[in-house]
Amino acid sequence: MQNPHSDIKALTFDVFGTVVDWYSSIVAEGKKFGNTHSIDIDWTQFALKWRAGYGPAMDKVRRGELPWQNIDALHRRILDALLETFEITGLSETEKDYLNRVWHRLKPWPDAVGGLERLRKRYIVATLSNGNIALLTNMAKFTGLPWDCILSAELTGHYKPDPQVYQTAADLLGLSPNEVMMVAAHPGDLRAAQAVGYQTALVPRPLEYGPDNIRSVTPHASDLVANDFNKLADLLRIT
Amino acid sequence: MQNPHSDIKALTFDVFGTVVDWYSSIVAEGKKFGNTHSIDIDWTQFALKWRAGYGPAMDKVRRGELPWQNIDALHRRILDALLETFEITGLSETEKDYLNRVWHRLKPWPDAVGGLERLRKRYIVATLSNGNIALLTNMAKFTGLPWDCILSAELTGHYKPDPQVYQTAADLLGLSPNEVMMVAAHPGDLRAAQAVGYQTALVPRPLEYGPDNIRSVTPHASDLVANDFNKLADLLRIT
Repeated sequence: MQNPHSDIKALTFDVFGTVVDWYSSIVAEGKKFGNTHSIDIDWTQFALKWRAGYGPAMDKVRRGELPWQNIDALHRRILDALLETFEITGLSETEKDYLNRVWHRLKPWPDAVGGLERLRKRYIVATLSNGNIALLTNMAKFTGLPWDCILSAELTGHYKPDPQVYQTAADLLGLSPNEVMMVAAHPGDLRAAQAVGYQTALVPRPLEYGPDNIRSVTPHASDLVANDFNKLADLLRIT
Repeated sequence: MQNPHSDIKALTFDVFGTVVDWYSSIVAEGKKFGNTHSIDIDWTQFALKWRAGYGPAMDKVRRGELPWQNIDALHRRILDALLETFEITGLSETEKDYLNRVWHRLKPWPDAVGGLERLRKRYIVATLSNGNIALLTNMAKFTGLPWDCILSAELTGHYKPDPQVYQTAADLLGLSPNEVMMVAAHPGDLRAAQAVGYQTALVPRPLEYGPDNIRSVTPHASDLVANDFNKLADLLRIT
């Protein structure tokens, strides 16, 4: 039987939750920021609410209720509302901007850098995130994520899971969609990629929302399933 | 006096001629291809004519005489005409495509990889080339060029030296133009970047057109001038 993965030339990765651990990164930075700024709040709730605002904010852009804007701008809209909710006052513009850019400083899951190093021996490895190019570039630089190419929904004027994002990414890589494998922790992302013709790999990240909110996901029959990027490299038989 | 370069956050690089030596790469691959396909032509002339077709082809796109198409497609148009000029017949589509993709396999100048490794210790280093994303990504992967980010005219629907290319690149990096330094062997590229607000560094590559066609260039007063990427790192005081 022919290896169904033999056509793959590139792997494209969802980033928030799949490659980096936004929850613990934001909680850790929040606590530190709180200590230096005398802000005493529950940073786990702050992190969860910030992330919870992300989908609805993109939906507003998708429905045309907000003009196109990148994720830095959407994160800032959500942050400004959260500062009111948590009654955090007195921050300067510089401090708010610093806090907003915590999304540029998210830490990779422990397997991510080493797993990507293995996967990129055979494949082009690229981001395919709703995060903007600057965010993804800064994140890669400061955490050592070894991308061959930074691709983003920002390049298309659409957000995942809109099909334009996946189609444009394949076009920019000079590949047909079935030569690309989408790697994500979120089935919705994979289903949308698959509808455009991508192959798919599910890498569940049960701790994405923190240890008190374990998430389980159900793979589709056609997905590769691997518990981390090293297991994915094993499945693809990369030493 | 304040260091005029202290604001720089990112260096963007012209690629063909500045980072990679298209002339000797194409001549070497051409000779090899000629040997295995019994094609006896002057590959130095073939390389020079292929490159000479590049500006006029982009001009046709710029004037609307050709619909938007990426550099792979423009290189192929020029190649098809050259095959007629040089009376090369009988190549399969696969062979023509392989030959066209020599532009994905161009070799870096000897200082390029090491110089970029030094420069990226402090700055984001990105391509800003008329080459398409797939070409630049493949080239980086197979030659070890350590880009933080692959940016291309392809993302803008314009070709350098149109101002949109430089402005969009700064926007995607989340920077103002004066936080970006364009690095190129070609004064026209630097002047166009400077008109948008970039800082500029000229790295002359006198051998770009081969040892029989030494080119000299005249720097603008405001340019940094360095003979290679290591000298540029020295000027920027990066160890």
